[in-house]
Amino acid sequence: MNISEYMQALGQNARAASRAVARANTGVKNSALLATAEALEAARPTLMAANQIDLEQGQANGLDPALLDRLALTPKVIDTMVEGLRQVAALADPVGEITDMNYRPSGIQLGKMRVPLGVIGIIYESRPNVTVEAASLCLKSGNAVILRGGSEAIHSNRAIADCLAQGLKAAGLPETAVQVINTTDRAAVGELITMPEYVDVIVPRGGKGLIERISKEATVPVIKHLDGICHVYIDSQADLDKAVSIAVNAKTHRYGTCNTMETLLVAESVATQVLPRLAEAYAEKGVELRGCEKTCQILPQAIAATETDWSTEYLAPILSIKVVADIDEAIEHINQYGSHHTDAIITESYALARRFLAEVDSSSVMVNASTRFADGFEYGLGAEIGISTDKIHARGPVGLEGLTSQKYVVFGDGHIRQ
Amino acid sequence: MNISEYMQALGQNARAASRAVARANTGVKNSALLATAEALEAARPTLMAANQIDLEQGQANGLDPALLDRLALTPKVIDTMVEGLRQVAALADPVGEITDMNYRPSGIQLGKMRVPLGVIGIIYESRPNVTVEAASLCLKSGNAVILRGGSEAIHSNRAIADCLAQGLKAAGLPETAVQVINTTDRAAVGELITMPEYVDVIVPRGGKGLIERISKEATVPVIKHLDGICHVYIDSQADLDKAVSIAVNAKTHRYGTCNTMETLLVAESVATQVLPRLAEAYAEKGVELRGCEKTCQILPQAIAATETDWSTEYLAPILSIKVVADIDEAIEHINQYGSHHTDAIITESYALARRFLAEVDSSSVMVNASTRFADGFEYGLGAEIGISTDKIHARGPVGLEGLTSQKYVVFGDGHIRQ
Repeated sequence: MNISEYMQALGQNARAASRAVARANTGVKNSALLATAEALEAARPTLMAANQIDLEQGQANGLDPALLDRLALTPKVIDTMVEGLRQVAALADPVGEITDMNYRPSGIQLGKMRVPLGVIGIIYESRPNVTVEAASLCLKSGNAVILRGGSEAIHSNRAIADCLAQGLKAAGLPETAVQVINTTDRAAVGELITMPEYVDVIVPRGGKGLIERISKEATVPVIKHLDGICHVYIDSQADLDKAVSIAVNAKTHRYGTCNTMETLLVAESVATQVLPRLAEAYAEKGVELRGCEKTCQILPQAIAATETDWSTEYLAPILSIKVVADIDEAIEHINQYGSHHTDAIITESYALARRFLAEVDSSSVMVNASTRFADGFEYGLGAEIGISTDKIHARGPVGLEGLTSQKYVVFGDGHIRQ
Repeated sequence: MNISEYMQALGQNARAASRAVARANTGVKNSALLATAEALEAARPTLMAANQIDLEQGQANGLDPALLDRLALTPKVIDTMVEGLRQVAALADPVGEITDMNYRPSGIQLGKMRVPLGVIGIIYESRPNVTVEAASLCLKSGNAVILRGGSEAIHSNRAIADCLAQGLKAAGLPETAVQVINTTDRAAVGELITMPEYVDVIVPRGGKGLIERISKEATVPVIKHLDGICHVYIDSQADLDKAVSIAVNAKTHRYGTCNTMETLLVAESVATQVLPRLAEAYAEKGVELRGCEKTCQILPQAIAATETDWSTEYLAPILSIKVVADIDEAIEHINQYGSHHTDAIITESYALARRFLAEVDSSSVMVNASTRFADGFEYGLGAEIGISTDKIHARGPVGLEGLTSQKYVVFGDGHIRQ
């Protein structure tokens, strides 16, 4: 069987299984999740042995230590996977929810019912725990899933796939509801993203290069998350204590996350007051500052920012700072250089807060809060499969609801159109 | 300027204008719509003269009479355009609606705000009134729009575009918020659907061939409507009076619409009772019947259906009929051969109605009502830009809300992530 035939077979299996999963009630889906948790518990030695093969091959192939770290299935990572399954089982089931039910003048009763998307393809890199996390979210939302993990994790992923199959089987669901692509051939990805007859949406999780390539080549819709170039704008009417506290938190709480602030915008009228206070706090944390001309005049320790800085996601202790004339310049800068992810204004002005909320075109827009709150757990989604910077379908953190759609339901009693 | 440069310029204009339209309040948008209505009224002679050129060229080029009919801007069609603008002005503005506002344990207040998509590209065929209809829906939902009508209607569309520009100008909005592509070069479509930097979504309106081609080639997301292969399933527990009434309405109320029934499924246990009654009603209307083997045994006047019939959208007085064993076979047939548009069950059974609603994977699923109700006006959307058979983003009739998205809004008071 060649790759194309293999992927077609996976697609057909997934499509068939998706009907069974879509029909499965909440109790059945939860029991599959809990049985998978038990299977993982029981398979600890097997999982770690399989992971050992991946780790040894990775070392032999000279993988980066950070990558090896993400690849490792330690007892703690297995604990997290087991706990994650139990948490997803505890989440409310979005499928079948009926809303907006109203009578129309014709006499029909019209509403919307939340339904699974069908088959989801997830493409990710080396962390094998994503296999469990992604599978559990797709299953709970009534979808079948085809998973393609990094080739470095193939043995670990196979062992995890066995546990998922046991869990599905125990609940009476088809084992093909969760399929892990069992080849490291890169052509498999090309097939997966061009099978709209079998796959309803692709969720790529990984670096910008991976996501751009997939978006470009996919004929299946992609829920994508590119950059997180997030801004905090300290307005002329900001409470400067709040401003310092939020700007420090948004940059330094964690450096490698997509909701971390990368560019700070400061209104000219408060720049000389607030920038030195901030610079002191950033210096303590070892954050490098790259400023516009005016920033460098106020902060001699800042180095001059280049045009590239305004559109760079550092994911590191580096911050670009720009002094702006007013909210107009701030909004324009954000809409031009930002990535439509998360942006915040610090202001006590009612009118300016309203303008910022309405005019900043990002998936999360905040007033007097740290950008670090843009997260599925903080938003109460229970879990997230990614953060979408798209506008179509899901926007912002994508939880179970983002893996579903709505159809119209109509109740009549013999009604015909006049 | 070549086509590529021309389209890039249109895209840049649209992107810039989209910010102004997104910011415009409801009153401003409504006054643009009403001013356009007045401009159309005032331009009646100009519109009809421009249309006359299109009609004469169309006749000279030997256009189909049905196409010439759709192309004609009669006084009545102009009345409809004017009235349509006033109706869209009267619709509620979806932009800025805030929902689901709740406090999170961290203390932040989280909600969702409805926002425009940005720039919408609409590709349609020869009816020039679509120019006004599409522009009005995009404008009311806060979007800029680039319109590409059929080349046969270019003079009419230019004249209509002038009225739209007057309306926008009168309201103080940029005239580039609505741009009609001013060339009949087909390469313009190819450019429009591959400019994701300037266009956020494409809505093709036209035949299946056009839509399939656009979906295949577009790198911009497409809200598409392919076939309308709609089913009515008369269940073993149907009220046969309701069944006859609905099955006749769903097929014969109008033949050329996408929500017209194309295939009738009948449970074996009631087939001999209900099919002769239906055949009589259809004979009166001149509907040709194409049946499965069992249907032909019951109805000698039916001709034998072929495999192709089950996946054909006739848009004509032709109906395919299949006798099925039970609801399982009915659901399987619909999910296999249907187009995920609109399907109805006729039953008095609570349990089977629930199963049909849950398991039929279509944008509208109905119980005891005619498929003809699947329509933006009947659903209370006020107007519709199309009916989506996709699962991602909009599904079913797409009104103003389908031309918007939601972003998260967060209100804090100096909140930082712990």
